[in-house]
Amino acid sequence: MSNGFAPLANDRFLRALKRQPVDRTPVWIMRQAGRYLPEYRATRARAGSFMNLCQSPELACEVTLQPLARFPLDAAILFSDILTVPDAMGLGLTFAEGEGPRFARPLRSVAEIDALAVPRIDQTLRYVTDAVTLIRRELQGRVPLIGFSGSPWTLACYMIEGGGSEHFERAKALLWNEPAAAHRLLDVLAQSVSAYLQAQLDAGAQALMLFDTWGGALSADHYREFSLRYMQQIAATLERGEGDARVPLILYSKGAMGQLEAMADSGVDALGLDWTITLDEARRRVGDRVALQGNVDPVVLYAGVDAIRAEARKAVHSFGANPGHVFNLGHGIHPTIDPEHLRALVEAVHSESAALFAARGNLR
Amino acid sequence: MSNGFAPLANDRFLRALKRQPVDRTPVWIMRQAGRYLPEYRATRARAGSFMNLCQSPELACEVTLQPLARFPLDAAILFSDILTVPDAMGLGLTFAEGEGPRFARPLRSVAEIDALAVPRIDQTLRYVTDAVTLIRRELQGRVPLIGFSGSPWTLACYMIEGGGSEHFERAKALLWNEPAAAHRLLDVLAQSVSAYLQAQLDAGAQALMLFDTWGGALSADHYREFSLRYMQQIAATLERGEGDARVPLILYSKGAMGQLEAMADSGVDALGLDWTITLDEARRRVGDRVALQGNVDPVVLYAGVDAIRAEARKAVHSFGANPGHVFNLGHGIHPTIDPEHLRALVEAVHSESAALFAARGNLR
Repeated sequence: MSNGFAPLANDRFLRALKRQPVDRTPVWIMRQAGRYLPEYRATRARAGSFMNLCQSPELACEVTLQPLARFPLDAAILFSDILTVPDAMGLGLTFAEGEGPRFARPLRSVAEIDALAVPRIDQTLRYVTDAVTLIRRELQGRVPLIGFSGSPWTLACYMIEGGGSEHFERAKALLWNEPAAAHRLLDVLAQSVSAYLQAQLDAGAQALMLFDTWGGALSADHYREFSLRYMQQIAATLERGEGDARVPLILYSKGAMGQLEAMADSGVDALGLDWTITLDEARRRVGDRVALQGNVDPVVLYAGVDAIRAEARKAVHSFGANPGHVFNLGHGIHPTIDPEHLRALVEAVHSESAALFAARGNLR
Repeated sequence: MSNGFAPLANDRFLRALKRQPVDRTPVWIMRQAGRYLPEYRATRARAGSFMNLCQSPELACEVTLQPLARFPLDAAILFSDILTVPDAMGLGLTFAEGEGPRFARPLRSVAEIDALAVPRIDQTLRYVTDAVTLIRRELQGRVPLIGFSGSPWTLACYMIEGGGSEHFERAKALLWNEPAAAHRLLDVLAQSVSAYLQAQLDAGAQALMLFDTWGGALSADHYREFSLRYMQQIAATLERGEGDARVPLILYSKGAMGQLEAMADSGVDALGLDWTITLDEARRRVGDRVALQGNVDPVVLYAGVDAIRAEARKAVHSFGANPGHVFNLGHGIHPTIDPEHLRALVEAVHSESAALFAARGNLR
């Protein structure tokens, strides 16, 4: 999909996702464009609301590029929200100041589930695909651009609960009490997310990621039946090209590290890891079927710079001199982190991995 | 420790913990004496405060016995809190209405850590051991009594943060920035918890449990170094008797199901499981080294009675006709559950397992 875009100068991230050798471990950080950056807070204030920021391609582009101007990151990620698809389906997404997402019209009955339809992406989510194309152009080939969506199960959680929830009583009760309706809901969401990610790819996204934020809230059986199955459907539906031009797909189910083997068989190219598993154990469990992305505890960024560097070193050496590692945190960066602490982390991952890979080269 | 207490009429729970055959799967429920019961709420109102309820042996005994009067449960658990030990160390534990625990004097420096000493259990926690003896007497041998404590790491989390926390920034930062001080803190807590559990055992507790509520917040390496290691120390220190009279020890690290193999080698008799792993997978991973306790998602109790019975059946059949399963939820029962839903769950576990074990007998 390089229709007129500048050629890619730094392809470490895409090479690592394809498990090809790289000169150093690529790094990007979940929520790298976010509240811990004063320049983000300034743009956010100008936008007026979080949704205005998401829905303005120019402002979304501006904040997407901000962390790249500060740190030597190896990928950009579209600035958007995981819940744009249900908003496009008419549920009315808002963010109250300092709070999480809220839907004005949450799902309250099986009839409301059955009335849902796949939204026309070109009409309802044009602001996202426009942002993708604008960011891709403004990146000028510096690093690849990641597009994303929430997973069907994670979207369903918010659509049923109306917002965040500690235990997801309503969403889970649907799985137990009305499994057929739950499957209909998840199927229409899988179709919608597929169309949405396909549109992002067509607009210029060079990698795609599914955020299954609440996969870990499910039992092992329900995770496979109600979450993983629909991400598998998306992976099978997307037209991502062939060979070296194929657009990689990353799956991240937070808190579901017990299900890594099943995830590795779901048709995706890479798995996001939280910090409850070591990289070497994850690699031992999934072998070379997929690349791995992660997984340092985001809280380490509150520690001192020496501790941050030690964690970076540990992560790099845990994965070792194998192809297929993208460094990231195990969850999004917290809003109260000192940006200079992130700089120390990014630089340590680059220098530690460069030294490790150079030593590997010397041994050859 | 059967000094004058009535002989035990129902020993299913203790037999299952020793991986001996039983006629049906024993059941108890974390927080079975709790706010979902109107009779608990009445006693709690009379007590005035949660700490008054914990500190009155008569009231603690009363609420401990309440769920046994309603449901055919196979074990009683001391009514107390996981944070009594740091309170005895002088940190000043309180519970504001509708909120979690608060310490008046949280740890704020390495000097404060180094000033901590193992409390005199017979002076500071007499209210707990008196409650244990009273409950044991009032149980009249109906079912065994479980004593418990929070784990050293979980106590340290609350002592450093001063209460609950979403991310445990301060507690984790200590592990990274001052590991030697963290080890000194966890060692004095392990010594204190050992003395506390030993005193509960001597007072009449017939099984012991460590609640490592925040073990799952740690990375795999930190879990082993800062949480599991100190539970292992407690397991090695406790004098629990020999042979059939040996008092079993259960370890429950919520959210740390990735570490089951290491837990199974820690010197405990049983592992508590949350609902993110199937019982058959857990059993496959730990073999017959330990018994397993758990693990249905507590949210299923919001579903209909048919779904509740189906989950009970699934759990019983997942473990199969092997010795060594104690049924429980994967986490404490929620305060807004209908008690009749718990009844359906307990009865279904008993009837499903009795049928399964009888079929096994027929095959022999």
